[in-house]
Amino acid sequence: MPKHIDHEQRRRDIIDVAWGLIRTGGLEAATLRQIAAQAGFANGALKHYFSGRDDIIEGAFQRALEAIGDHVSQAVRGQGGVEALGAMMRQTLPLDDDAAAAARVLLALWDHAVANDSLRASYRRHLDAWRERLAQLIRQGRQEGAIRSEAADDQLVDEIVLVNIGATVLAVSAPDLVAPDALNRLVDAFLARLSTPAIER
Amino acid sequence: MPKHIDHEQRRRDIIDVAWGLIRTGGLEAATLRQIAAQAGFANGALKHYFSGRDDIIEGAFQRALEAIGDHVSQAVRGQGGVEALGAMMRQTLPLDDDAAAAARVLLALWDHAVANDSLRASYRRHLDAWRERLAQLIRQGRQEGAIRSEAADDQLVDEIVLVNIGATVLAVSAPDLVAPDALNRLVDAFLARLSTPAIER
Repeated sequence: MPKHIDHEQRRRDIIDVAWGLIRTGGLEAATLRQIAAQAGFANGALKHYFSGRDDIIEGAFQRALEAIGDHVSQAVRGQGGVEALGAMMRQTLPLDDDAAAAARVLLALWDHAVANDSLRASYRRHLDAWRERLAQLIRQGRQEGAIRSEAADDQLVDEIVLVNIGATVLAVSAPDLVAPDALNRLVDAFLARLSTPAIER
Repeated sequence: MPKHIDHEQRRRDIIDVAWGLIRTGGLEAATLRQIAAQAGFANGALKHYFSGRDDIIEGAFQRALEAIGDHVSQAVRGQGGVEALGAMMRQTLPLDDDAAAAARVLLALWDHAVANDSLRASYRRHLDAWRERLAQLIRQGRQEGAIRSEAADDQLVDEIVLVNIGATVLAVSAPDLVAPDALNRLVDAFLARLSTPAIER
């Protein structure tokens, strides 16, 4: 097996360890010492694979964003238009324990991105891809005649994204306020509104 | 002047310094060393006023939440019902530079609250007070006949709070996606919807 494959595998293993630490204990739990200990490395050995802690943390956040993207792709597979839009909205809302763990990672990512340009750029690409998928499904829903809202597509996308991010924050800081019943009710009301013309401008 | 007043003033001064550091550089910038240096204390002297860094950070977050509450009270003063509701929504959205700085503090607070029960409880009290004020204004708007939406009051409060928190996150990580035009458009559409009956269930 060529050497660089082994190297890549080690990087992935280390990132997995860091991601696990962030999910359970927040960003502060993922110290270089803890990562090295759990990955079975001597303290200084991580530097053969990463330039430093920030480099590992960024890898963990990238992995988290990819996992969210994969999750969503699976949820909407084989569906289109409004059906897929509803599935995608529910898939990205924090409706189960897994999503609550992902929410903790996102909170750490957002805070870390304040002072990290490359991480902010990664999150922005994730956000743009997510918004573009939502916009495509809305256009498709209009073509099929299922979406008749007079609100601009951009505005509908903004609304979905902002409600979703807000729910992600509260999933961590006040989970009872974003119980599945309340979130599903918001999605239902939003979808009902999409099918009704002449309501908003 | 009695001695305890001086002591309280020193605590406030130290909290002000910590808040300033968090606003500009995020939570990681507010180290004990930096706080002591900027407040004009020797490194060990802070412990006469606070039990440790977490204690100071929590004080800074408390101050931030109070400032947001005061800001909102001023914005809705002398108004009631739908008018006050609109003013309150715009006041809590990140529509100016000051609000963007406050958004950075909130991001740090949310991430920190993951592992800090007392901070999470503080934020929860802030959230409950905010939700109760929104609910009161919605009830008042219904009594005045200006709000005729069939959506439950709770659901309307959820929607306002989630959009607001989502916008706070994006004000830091993707500010061009929450430009004032887009946010004002969302508020206008929401208020227009409130006055229309029989749209959502």
